[in-house]
Amino acid sequence: MEKEVTIYDLAHKLEISPATVSRALQDHPAISKKTKKKIFELAEEMGYRTNNFARNLRNKNTNTIGVIVPRLDSYFMSTVIAGIENTAGNLGYQIIISQSSEQVKKEASSANTLFNSRVDGLLVSLAYDTEDLSHFDIFLKKKVPIIFFDRVTDYDGCMNILIDNRKAANEATRHLIQQGCRRLVHLTAIPKRNVYIDRLEGFKQALEEAGLPYSEDQVIIDNLSQEAGVRAAEIISKMKPLPDGVFVSNDNCATVCMITLKKMGIRIPEDIAFVGFNNDPVCKVAEPNLTTINYPGYEMGQVAARSLISHLSGAVNIHATTAITLRADLIVRASSMRIKSS
Amino acid sequence: MEKEVTIYDLAHKLEISPATVSRALQDHPAISKKTKKKIFELAEEMGYRTNNFARNLRNKNTNTIGVIVPRLDSYFMSTVIAGIENTAGNLGYQIIISQSSEQVKKEASSANTLFNSRVDGLLVSLAYDTEDLSHFDIFLKKKVPIIFFDRVTDYDGCMNILIDNRKAANEATRHLIQQGCRRLVHLTAIPKRNVYIDRLEGFKQALEEAGLPYSEDQVIIDNLSQEAGVRAAEIISKMKPLPDGVFVSNDNCATVCMITLKKMGIRIPEDIAFVGFNNDPVCKVAEPNLTTINYPGYEMGQVAARSLISHLSGAVNIHATTAITLRADLIVRASSMRIKSS
Repeated sequence: MEKEVTIYDLAHKLEISPATVSRALQDHPAISKKTKKKIFELAEEMGYRTNNFARNLRNKNTNTIGVIVPRLDSYFMSTVIAGIENTAGNLGYQIIISQSSEQVKKEASSANTLFNSRVDGLLVSLAYDTEDLSHFDIFLKKKVPIIFFDRVTDYDGCMNILIDNRKAANEATRHLIQQGCRRLVHLTAIPKRNVYIDRLEGFKQALEEAGLPYSEDQVIIDNLSQEAGVRAAEIISKMKPLPDGVFVSNDNCATVCMITLKKMGIRIPEDIAFVGFNNDPVCKVAEPNLTTINYPGYEMGQVAARSLISHLSGAVNIHATTAITLRADLIVRASSMRIKSS
Repeated sequence: MEKEVTIYDLAHKLEISPATVSRALQDHPAISKKTKKKIFELAEEMGYRTNNFARNLRNKNTNTIGVIVPRLDSYFMSTVIAGIENTAGNLGYQIIISQSSEQVKKEASSANTLFNSRVDGLLVSLAYDTEDLSHFDIFLKKKVPIIFFDRVTDYDGCMNILIDNRKAANEATRHLIQQGCRRLVHLTAIPKRNVYIDRLEGFKQALEEAGLPYSEDQVIIDNLSQEAGVRAAEIISKMKPLPDGVFVSNDNCATVCMITLKKMGIRIPEDIAFVGFNNDPVCKVAEPNLTTINYPGYEMGQVAARSLISHLSGAVNIHATTAITLRADLIVRASSMRIKSS
């Protein structure tokens, strides 16, 4: 690699003092616009790089935020990351991204790497099976703030950013009941993390409020992939009596389950009504279009980044806030419209 | 922030020499396992951080790769990033991600920020309207390697990682012709970037090879969103005679266009056959399932990261390679199957 260009090189070339160059590069008002322009142009021409590294070493901050997500290749998560990047970028922060691939071991190793990179703060959506959180202890010891989003936890006063999954699931289930469904099924992932635990609770709660019975047979647990949608359709088609409403924790799985049932001759929504979760683009492709919960991923990313950076800049102390709950509304489409007037 | 823990603190506490601590932390074979264990445990307990920053300042590398993409919230791009993160992570590199939001101005500012962060290399998929590439000049001046992927360009010997878009489009169009289609339409984005230019070329070429006429009316230009799919359906439904085959540059747009035409009473594939591009999950939700080109995003991300890191480690000189072309095959599904035996 070539020798790094310094302010002394710029000063020498322009025959001015290094102090003037330094002040100009910091946009100091004492330096004339004309001089600044000259210096900026030469800096660019010579490939001068502001010494972020040396400066960070002094300032003890890196203007970077670490982000750990379970997986990057999901539509929902990609919208969250787009929101984080947008807000962080506008506020002068960069993001370093890592995926745990749903494994606590990889999550711990990502946390460790980000810690050693001295990120100023951390945004985390937990892996599926993370129970022990001790890999985050090093951050708290150093007072590096952590905010959890979507897949959250109760961890030593850290802020959570989430939606009210229980309420959303309750609303989804209640909607199915209002549409005349009486034999309901919930298709979801193992209720280990808050998102799945709370959705199952909301489902049960809505049944109870409507005076409908609940048994464990009404819950199908799988990994919410497209393949899981096919598997669930096979289970559902063999249930006696046939269920008349299905609430699924994920749109992608819901739509595939729905079209697999259609191929077996089951009518949607007349025989079985469907509600999904997230409001992925896939909802508008499915026939009938899928009723779902609108999960505001982009806004969640923006709020997470803004909260963390406000804390870092000293404007707000996130430890005073336990959680920020974002609005998540039911979007009614044809897959659940059994009563035509609704 | 608290005072940083140093190897001297660890040495003092354990009553051993700083040199022993330093060697143990570097896993030097001269230090016994027992001593290493003692030191590692204390390092963790006291929150010692390997001084990556100071070390990077000496080594002149940061073990980070900058990534600039047009937008983060697309399924295809999220699979590429997942592939980059996976390979980079395994090879000890972190990724810093930035999105240009399809604007050359934002792309230039992202490039500048990443340059000042001293990324070791850059992976770029260009914004829609980037023509002037001078914002990348500073990298080349400093010999910081750049690799372009998907949306590539011819820029001063930089390596491109791409698929053969012309060949893929030719194959898609030829497939439609083999299925008996004669009045073909191509729905795509403004042919400014390689991906859209090459797909249009491949479309035209296949028509020519089959002895079919081509006119500009056969190309519908829009932004490939779901809404663009609805708009295109309206245009197509009014064409006289009705086209009998549509090749779309994006699955999401293709599926919405297809179901909008179906609602108008047009049969797919009997009246109009469809082929999309990317192999997004949406293909398997659409009815009929969408024939498409399988664009291997995850593999593209892996290859991009591996090529860049091989170059950085001195194993391979990427400047000796102009381009790596990945395999992209046609996946035939029901949306184009007019001849049942094929």
